[in-house]
Amino acid sequence: MSFAIGVDLGGTNLRIAAVSEQGELLEKITTGTHVRLGRDAVINEMTAAISRQAAKFSRSQELLGIGIGVPGIIDAHTGMLRESPNLAGWNDYPVRDEIERRLGSPVALENDANCAALGEDWLGAAKAADHMCMITLGTGVGGGIVLHGRVWHGLTGMAGELGHITVDPNGPNCPCGNRGCAEQFASATAIMRMAHAAIAGGKSEALKRAAGDPNAEFNSKAVYELAVQGDQAAQEIYHTVGWALGVLLGDLVNALNLQMYVIGGGVSASWEVFAPALFEELQRRSFVYAATAPNDMIASVAEGASATLKPLGTSPRTIITHAVLGGDAGLYGAARLPMLPVDKM
Amino acid sequence: MSFAIGVDLGGTNLRIAAVSEQGELLEKITTGTHVRLGRDAVINEMTAAISRQAAKFSRSQELLGIGIGVPGIIDAHTGMLRESPNLAGWNDYPVRDEIERRLGSPVALENDANCAALGEDWLGAAKAADHMCMITLGTGVGGGIVLHGRVWHGLTGMAGELGHITVDPNGPNCPCGNRGCAEQFASATAIMRMAHAAIAGGKSEALKRAAGDPNAEFNSKAVYELAVQGDQAAQEIYHTVGWALGVLLGDLVNALNLQMYVIGGGVSASWEVFAPALFEELQRRSFVYAATAPNDMIASVAEGASATLKPLGTSPRTIITHAVLGGDAGLYGAARLPMLPVDKM
Repeated sequence: MSFAIGVDLGGTNLRIAAVSEQGELLEKITTGTHVRLGRDAVINEMTAAISRQAAKFSRSQELLGIGIGVPGIIDAHTGMLRESPNLAGWNDYPVRDEIERRLGSPVALENDANCAALGEDWLGAAKAADHMCMITLGTGVGGGIVLHGRVWHGLTGMAGELGHITVDPNGPNCPCGNRGCAEQFASATAIMRMAHAAIAGGKSEALKRAAGDPNAEFNSKAVYELAVQGDQAAQEIYHTVGWALGVLLGDLVNALNLQMYVIGGGVSASWEVFAPALFEELQRRSFVYAATAPNDMIASVAEGASATLKPLGTSPRTIITHAVLGGDAGLYGAARLPMLPVDKM
Repeated sequence: MSFAIGVDLGGTNLRIAAVSEQGELLEKITTGTHVRLGRDAVINEMTAAISRQAAKFSRSQELLGIGIGVPGIIDAHTGMLRESPNLAGWNDYPVRDEIERRLGSPVALENDANCAALGEDWLGAAKAADHMCMITLGTGVGGGIVLHGRVWHGLTGMAGELGHITVDPNGPNCPCGNRGCAEQFASATAIMRMAHAAIAGGKSEALKRAAGDPNAEFNSKAVYELAVQGDQAAQEIYHTVGWALGVLLGDLVNALNLQMYVIGGGVSASWEVFAPALFEELQRRSFVYAATAPNDMIASVAEGASATLKPLGTSPRTIITHAVLGGDAGLYGAARLPMLPVDKM
């Protein structure tokens, strides 16, 4: 029996899990990330907790290694955290070296969205898939690509930034420097921007009331609930979410022809209100999808513009689905990292 | 010594080459593709020429196999040509089975743009790259992705349709069923559409004269020459080409973080007139590019919106460049196919 330790270092929570090679959760520890105490304090707390957990399970099992998921852009060559909106003061910080120095052992450092993709590929929605990508809809939109069971890193470990693919070249400005990124249409932040714009434009009394309610948080879930209740402005917002995801997925299916595309993150819980627009857009925009759509999609594909290219009977189909591991995907993915061969970089 | 036979089956020419395992061209045969005689005649002519060449070089060398590049969408599982605008009557035709039956030996069938990418990766611009993609600007816009020396096929062999990534969701309709595909801005066809629109709009006397000249063909090269001579409408057309390629490459760099992106095909000869707009757009739209730009790009990256994320000294850089093998890329790539391990599908 052997195990690995996975760490999910979020802006709010620090979670550490011991996971067996078979994917069983042995122990999960959750603590608040004391970001305000500074990065040294966070790293000390994390390495101390890792050491305790490692010692505990090493008595009976072999420790395969330690994987850490971090929110931000990592340079895989240097192990530097290039940019992390949720970890102030960590920019261009040699986080991998520091952790390795304190633990006295090597660690695998990975972007948190890549970890989530790896987790869903290993134990979640894409368990049976040879290759997949995951789009994580949260405060921002993250992404990760997994080919043959391993994260596709690219040249510097920055691959999988799917939330910053351009969906509308004239769309809203994105903090990344681009305009009209998928993130500007399909993140919780974008949903709230659209909700406030709808309120300012006098388009929905229900949204306005929800925004002014002192007893309930006004967030993307509140907008979702109004959409379910039939509020037209809220429905239009989630239609835009689905539209943007359809354009994005069309790009990804045409470029990569992967077996499975998994949508996760908090906003993915609103699947029922954005999925119809997603599939409508995807079928129109990707002839590769039209040629590989699942059986239950063929009728609607046939009505689309790519009517000549229907799936062949014997050919495999493209699956678009939602994630199943919830918030644990990244933790499982981080634990998976040390179980895989090291990428040459 | 061993060799392979590569075939480039175009709508106009049929080219067959014997290529050594080291990449030396042993013999190249070019004939017209007699498409009007029907697919059986074309396949007969092709298989006869392959058999002759195989017999000739097999006397002294081992034949590794036969690779065939075809313009169109191939289903890798069935070996069917799903759709091919340049080969009328070949749609949903089991082309691989037919060729194998006549030759009595297995062949590797591949989309022509994937072959071109493989050729440039093996012997051309990306010879030193671990992973790359190629965008081929011709009548349409093709693409191919090569990871670790092999074509990335995806689920059904349809990966790499980079010309149908959405650049502007409200752009011109594309025959693929989508709107605003890269192909609608950066192909020779798109250039001529924009040129005729400029003429119709009274925007350029020079373009109008060139279009009416009975002694010279009015094509994308003619528009390029007017752009070089300073015609503003022609320059704007190539600016649009560069803009669209910049958006497309921004998507590809953010998603895949590849080492090299190669631009080939006839329109790529106009590199000097579209490249400035391409790099301007790419630097603004892809923070991954900004973080990995080559040294000579850093100054202009710093002026862009992603100014905080500059390349680190020790990290490798993303290279965007033009193809070097010209029309032979696809032929070399086709010959390369049988030299590689067979993909499990």
